[in-house]
Amino acid sequence: MVPHLRTSLIGPLSELELLMLDAMPQIERWFRMEWQEHTPPFYSSVNLRHSGFKLAPVNTNLFPSSFNYLAEEMYPLATQAAMVAVEKYCPDAKNLLIISGDQTSCPLYLKNLAHLSNILRLTGLNVRLSSLSEDLTQTTTLTLTDGQTLSLEPLERNGRRITLDKGRFDPCTILLNNDLLNGEPKILENLTEQILLPPLHAGWSTHSQSTHFNNYDNVAKRFSKFLDIDPWLISAYYNKLSKIDDNQKTSKKELHHIIDQQLKKIAKKYKEYHIEEKPFLIIKPDVGTSKSAIKIHNSNELTELENWLYDINIDKKTNNLLIQEGIPTIESVDKQPAEPIVYMIDRYVVGGFYRINSEKIIDTPPHQPAVRFEPLPYIKQSERTLNDISTVHNRFYSYGVVARLAMLASSIELEQTDPNPDFT
Amino acid sequence: MVPHLRTSLIGPLSELELLMLDAMPQIERWFRMEWQEHTPPFYSSVNLRHSGFKLAPVNTNLFPSSFNYLAEEMYPLATQAAMVAVEKYCPDAKNLLIISGDQTSCPLYLKNLAHLSNILRLTGLNVRLSSLSEDLTQTTTLTLTDGQTLSLEPLERNGRRITLDKGRFDPCTILLNNDLLNGEPKILENLTEQILLPPLHAGWSTHSQSTHFNNYDNVAKRFSKFLDIDPWLISAYYNKLSKIDDNQKTSKKELHHIIDQQLKKIAKKYKEYHIEEKPFLIIKPDVGTSKSAIKIHNSNELTELENWLYDINIDKKTNNLLIQEGIPTIESVDKQPAEPIVYMIDRYVVGGFYRINSEKIIDTPPHQPAVRFEPLPYIKQSERTLNDISTVHNRFYSYGVVARLAMLASSIELEQTDPNPDFT
Repeated sequence: MVPHLRTSLIGPLSELELLMLDAMPQIERWFRMEWQEHTPPFYSSVNLRHSGFKLAPVNTNLFPSSFNYLAEEMYPLATQAAMVAVEKYCPDAKNLLIISGDQTSCPLYLKNLAHLSNILRLTGLNVRLSSLSEDLTQTTTLTLTDGQTLSLEPLERNGRRITLDKGRFDPCTILLNNDLLNGEPKILENLTEQILLPPLHAGWSTHSQSTHFNNYDNVAKRFSKFLDIDPWLISAYYNKLSKIDDNQKTSKKELHHIIDQQLKKIAKKYKEYHIEEKPFLIIKPDVGTSKSAIKIHNSNELTELENWLYDINIDKKTNNLLIQEGIPTIESVDKQPAEPIVYMIDRYVVGGFYRINSEKIIDTPPHQPAVRFEPLPYIKQSERTLNDISTVHNRFYSYGVVARLAMLASSIELEQTDPNPDFT
Repeated sequence: MVPHLRTSLIGPLSELELLMLDAMPQIERWFRMEWQEHTPPFYSSVNLRHSGFKLAPVNTNLFPSSFNYLAEEMYPLATQAAMVAVEKYCPDAKNLLIISGDQTSCPLYLKNLAHLSNILRLTGLNVRLSSLSEDLTQTTTLTLTDGQTLSLEPLERNGRRITLDKGRFDPCTILLNNDLLNGEPKILENLTEQILLPPLHAGWSTHSQSTHFNNYDNVAKRFSKFLDIDPWLISAYYNKLSKIDDNQKTSKKELHHIIDQQLKKIAKKYKEYHIEEKPFLIIKPDVGTSKSAIKIHNSNELTELENWLYDINIDKKTNNLLIQEGIPTIESVDKQPAEPIVYMIDRYVVGGFYRINSEKIIDTPPHQPAVRFEPLPYIKQSERTLNDISTVHNRFYSYGVVARLAMLASSIELEQTDPNPDFT
């Protein structure tokens, strides 16, 4: 089940959209069977690109940090899904601790924390917050732009448990909203008595974009066979380039080669499907939720790429690059390119929003306003008209399908990389 | 979790409401632990009465038939909850059959069927409809007032399975929206290969209002002990009078006695709580979802009662009466008394509506307009003002708690009356 949300598209349904809507009962059953075998992550978000001829995930986040951008009307759905998840992991839970990300100086991130806390409070849990910051040595009150406040309390390690408030707050479940880009914190190791969601190995110190897309490709292949479609229609080609700084020369040559090969592969597919667009690639760090990425049309743009690499000051420890097939977007909001981001809790799609004018989605004139976000609202019965196909058919359905495929890939990845598979 | 819906009340929170809101994390945990032991019915609705000093269920329906009165914005929540239920009973389900109630000539009931079908279709199931009517020998198309149509197809018994369309539609799950007031139909017996929801023994041929309230009393006692309240605050006294026609004289005497005793018990409680209302009783058939009930203030009103008994032409087979403590309602919509009805799917509250001006809730002048229904809408963040306590606190929460207690009582009842406990 995917809620009927309003996407930016108003034209006729694409072949892929029609196919998925027609096969809904089969697809939902397929997912139900998968969830018999695999456990979905507690929460996740997936960035999609929709070009009309294809719809594929380009980023999956197991520490979603923009709950504040969901339409308000989605919160009951999110709360109910969270309740399902809480019941599964820790039915006797009373207390839940959220460990925040490092962005606590960002007002928008604080809004996310407030929304996430509220969703979990409404499931009937006592929710308190902390962070991994070493500076957090006493309870710190943070004020949101609307005057609301959030308290972050220092973490305490009590034997095999994490507590707050001199042991008075002893959570059953600890929810990480921190993607552990700086490594697995010692204080969270060996918490065998408490449930850590997602587990430590979901963090960037274990997994990477390329391991995810490797798993995604397998899931997409299986699903495509089931639906009898070309897996390319729901996935983006990708490649990983490792060790970009150890031997600059070799890696440059390799990069050149990979870019050429990748562009040729896409061009071949474009020819097969009579697509007249110009193939391009998106290059981004293989580790971390990329805030920065560069768009490349051919292997001669390497200087620009090098400048970008220098600019983003890529970490030596995590110095791999993901070279991903670029997917042109047909979606726009207020005439600006828009990328849909789908939010999920447990195995349920609970909403989504558009990231508008994100850098390099397509060429945009300079000095555009900064990135902004637009929630996807429900389509009400009363809004349905035959003149607008998106109000009659749930156009958001195919987004929900592809996002859940990416989430399923993450579930499988978490199983495969679990250091203590017997404990799960 | 109970969605934040707008109730009719605007005054300060009652002691009971405050107590429940304060104990939300403990209460939600209490329910989570109960659902570890007991399986909720697929769906249910509970009629409540709220007098300010108490809030209790007065009717529980395991075949809820007014999904059309839920606010439209509740449908995603209902669909998600239905998805949880479907996954539990039949994860590989593709096809679901709804067996309609007997009221297919009622346009409003058809609307309910259409809404229920849509909710289940959105979970990703192929949904088709049938009925138990012997007149249904070929596919019959029924037209709703809005022009929509519903097809009812005749049931076929194929060995141990029920099918439609010459075996071409073979459901995994069969959802009963028929309360089986006329007994358990032969065609539904021994369906060991398909899941019948709710099971046959949920119908009125096995259970009764009094068996339900007997179970409810036990649940209410346990919950009240946990919350440290008087169980009377969440339950209504009741008594059963059996064999009202076998020996009219004896039963009249007994009825007189029961009514006196019951009114005295209520008066005692009223005194304890300094309530100045006049105690009254509601008398209704012990079997069936009572469309008819009579209000009695003292045992001298027996003539009126007898006339009523004659009027409703109570079935000799199911000739028991439920004599229930009357609960005055403080709720009104458009100055008319209103009774909240809470809808649940699986263990989740998915919405509710008011039944307005239902007969005999309080004395109403004659020739009032017929009963009408008003959905309870969500309260949006933007509507919250400190001047209106109901927009800040989820006033609907206590309704969700008491309704779920009644649903839990039904779950326990279904376990206890299961003729094949090993199969469940």
